[in-house]
Amino acid sequence: MSDALVQPVVKEIPPKAADLSAWYTAVCLKAELVSYSPVRGCVVLRPYGYGLWENLQKHLDVAFKATGHENAYFPLLIPEGLLLKEAEHVEGFAPEVAWVTHGGQEELTERLAIRPTSEVIIGVMYAQWVESYRDLPILINQWANVLRWEKATRPFLRTMEFLWQEGHTAHAHAQEAREETLRMLEVYEEFARDVAAVPVYAGIKSASERFPGAVETYSIEALMPDGKALQSATSHDLGQNFAKAYDIKFVDADQQIKHAYTTSWGMSWRMLGAMIMVHGDDRGLRIPPKMAPLHAVFVPIVRSNDDRAVAASHEAAASLRKAGYRVKVDDRDQQPGWKYAEWDLRGVPVRIEMGPRDVDAGNVVLVRRDRAKGDPDQKAIVPLDQLAQRLQALLDEIQASLYAQAKAFLESHTFAVSDRDEFYAKCKSRAGMVDIPWCGREACEAHVKAETSATTRNTHPLDVVGARCVACGEPATVRAYFAQSY
Amino acid sequence: MSDALVQPVVKEIPPKAADLSAWYTAVCLKAELVSYSPVRGCVVLRPYGYGLWENLQKHLDVAFKATGHENAYFPLLIPEGLLLKEAEHVEGFAPEVAWVTHGGQEELTERLAIRPTSEVIIGVMYAQWVESYRDLPILINQWANVLRWEKATRPFLRTMEFLWQEGHTAHAHAQEAREETLRMLEVYEEFARDVAAVPVYAGIKSASERFPGAVETYSIEALMPDGKALQSATSHDLGQNFAKAYDIKFVDADQQIKHAYTTSWGMSWRMLGAMIMVHGDDRGLRIPPKMAPLHAVFVPIVRSNDDRAVAASHEAAASLRKAGYRVKVDDRDQQPGWKYAEWDLRGVPVRIEMGPRDVDAGNVVLVRRDRAKGDPDQKAIVPLDQLAQRLQALLDEIQASLYAQAKAFLESHTFAVSDRDEFYAKCKSRAGMVDIPWCGREACEAHVKAETSATTRNTHPLDVVGARCVACGEPATVRAYFAQSY
Repeated sequence: MSDALVQPVVKEIPPKAADLSAWYTAVCLKAELVSYSPVRGCVVLRPYGYGLWENLQKHLDVAFKATGHENAYFPLLIPEGLLLKEAEHVEGFAPEVAWVTHGGQEELTERLAIRPTSEVIIGVMYAQWVESYRDLPILINQWANVLRWEKATRPFLRTMEFLWQEGHTAHAHAQEAREETLRMLEVYEEFARDVAAVPVYAGIKSASERFPGAVETYSIEALMPDGKALQSATSHDLGQNFAKAYDIKFVDADQQIKHAYTTSWGMSWRMLGAMIMVHGDDRGLRIPPKMAPLHAVFVPIVRSNDDRAVAASHEAAASLRKAGYRVKVDDRDQQPGWKYAEWDLRGVPVRIEMGPRDVDAGNVVLVRRDRAKGDPDQKAIVPLDQLAQRLQALLDEIQASLYAQAKAFLESHTFAVSDRDEFYAKCKSRAGMVDIPWCGREACEAHVKAETSATTRNTHPLDVVGARCVACGEPATVRAYFAQSY
Repeated sequence: MSDALVQPVVKEIPPKAADLSAWYTAVCLKAELVSYSPVRGCVVLRPYGYGLWENLQKHLDVAFKATGHENAYFPLLIPEGLLLKEAEHVEGFAPEVAWVTHGGQEELTERLAIRPTSEVIIGVMYAQWVESYRDLPILINQWANVLRWEKATRPFLRTMEFLWQEGHTAHAHAQEAREETLRMLEVYEEFARDVAAVPVYAGIKSASERFPGAVETYSIEALMPDGKALQSATSHDLGQNFAKAYDIKFVDADQQIKHAYTTSWGMSWRMLGAMIMVHGDDRGLRIPPKMAPLHAVFVPIVRSNDDRAVAASHEAAASLRKAGYRVKVDDRDQQPGWKYAEWDLRGVPVRIEMGPRDVDAGNVVLVRRDRAKGDPDQKAIVPLDQLAQRLQALLDEIQASLYAQAKAFLESHTFAVSDRDEFYAKCKSRAGMVDIPWCGREACEAHVKAETSATTRNTHPLDVVGARCVACGEPATVRAYFAQSY
């Protein structure tokens, strides 16, 4: 092993409730989702983790295409001079940029930034491509790696390099850009809910949490088991800020030259971190079936030289595969109990056990990963000829059940509070999402943060006229979720 | 438009035969496959070009998974110290590496290379993951961007940053690694032939053309219309070189500690360049149906306010889409002839024309892009209710016909030569692939290169015992294809 490496050796998984952070790191490593790498701040996404990413990609890509978007690819490196054109944007990202200063043996005359995000380079290209209102809208998405200088490393949640998608669109009208921003927010919310089984609150970010250069930033926010919120995707209405900085102009139908309105929106592998934390238990991952690299694992049981279950498992697996299921037969030379623990750790939704007596009876035993050991619903004996149909029903049930559990947790940890002391206490104790009528003032937000380390996660419309801000007593303008956050 | 940009304005496409290079650049830009970017050496892959890349990815990814590989993702940046461990490798790549020296405001104590390829970082990780022979083989592929410092820019063929896939595997035995290397070479050959419709020669690279650090490099080589060869993919048997440099060791079944054997193999978007050059004609691209972002485009024809063909086209398109075809209706307010030229340029395999009389008759006209204008087989009148079936047959025919044309060209431009003067003359005149018994000596290869600028593309087994090298008269050890190359 290279001496440059610091790979933590994880012997066992600590209980989730005792130390979420230690549990999380242990699960990510032991389930072989990621490895730490010799590059500070960077992790390796191992095949099983990449399998999660592929399922995220597949679902989001279909949703992007169904809403009219196409994929494209833009350069990784951005000349420093171009970055400087949008003042707020460069100020926001400058501390996080990695700089290329040499190519081969040669020192560059202008430094090149590794993209922390691609508004700049894409803005420059759109300026070239757009001439007339007929060229609009441009609806493009990019699947890419980006890099933001970071010292801390937490798999999926905080890494220097990460994988994401970034959508970038340009429109003739402000209203159309706003609609696009909201449409993609909805795509994210649906993905979180229907695929990752993670309930979220969608809303508007406060000014201090806004994307540098945006007119309005929307987000979806999930709640982790430790009461901290995790921002899981953002969608930005950029107004004409980038169009003016990068000169995205068009001749409109009325023959006037106008600047376009642009948007950008992104979800990264951070979403995987939310999914892991929300659903996992003391035995390891619990992966929602739609995201699972494997729907089910067969564990054939061999007794006193009777290994008929191995062949029968392979046969059943082959027929499930043909029907579109992602399955595997674990026929390694290990004890069944050892295998059960491993596949529990890796969160495969269903285990399919088959022993000699099952072969004789033409049955298999389906074991649900989402239920606790000993739960009366954990196991079911199923005739082999009904396997595909019963498996599908079970996967649907597991998907729904994981969502329902997460939703119940979010709801029971969301507090609509009207008392000032209670608000501060709940924020401080990391109780969850604390929902109050809020004044919207940065000074108020800063005060709450200084007192409790909670911030606004996002805001939603005020439901009562004349309400006062629970945090400071000034007139309220919105409702806001406050929480401590990742 | 930003003044930092130098975007060539292409008015028309020059004839392909007159100036392949000018034709190629014009087609890539005008068909909107790529745009030049403000970053030296980097292009933007526009949605239509990315559509080609997506089809390449889809086909190769299925082939990789069918041969037991999984995807993963490794860091973009590689600490300089790690790069230095494999001497030949670092020497080969050092002149092409872009260096990150600053992160945020901070100067780094160790420079970070942007990956020119990932053997190093992946080798370091495999060393961590492998303990026992039971952990082998590791069969991983990565879809990624890589960067090699370049001054020239030619879309797909030569760019600083490019998209590719790189497979990296580790094995317990030398023989298994060699088989893997050859298996993936075959996957590439099949992809080129069956999907991109590009015939290639598969074989072994000479020592001078070998990947830095490899024991043996295999390649597939295509022939371009100007008689120059284009290396389209490579597969490397790395022996134990990287395993020794990066310490990939395992305890074998016999309890001995051994170094693993590794391979790597890659195909980049360069393959798209080969496909474009091989099939295109004076009207623009001709895309093989399996690679085409669009199988067919409907051009409805409106006559004196009779626009029934528009609705009928949309209806037919919707039903084709349901059947899995990639189709589009071009209902823009433009002349049909203008649309024909545009879709010809963009190389869509089939155009579907429909006018009011076709609507009355229940017909459409299918027009093949691969045939010349006026060719008696170019157009066919097809009853609307047979459209899907006839379209499929036509796409199959076009796919086969493009391959057959390219194959005929390759064969008629491959010369098995036994005369020394003829060999030098053919190399010099860029006649195509010049196939000779060859001695395999670097000095001989260098001499041919100095005289003719041709190099060995790859080698295949000698068919005659006792043959002499046509280039120098020494005993031959192999047959080699010589050609000038991209």
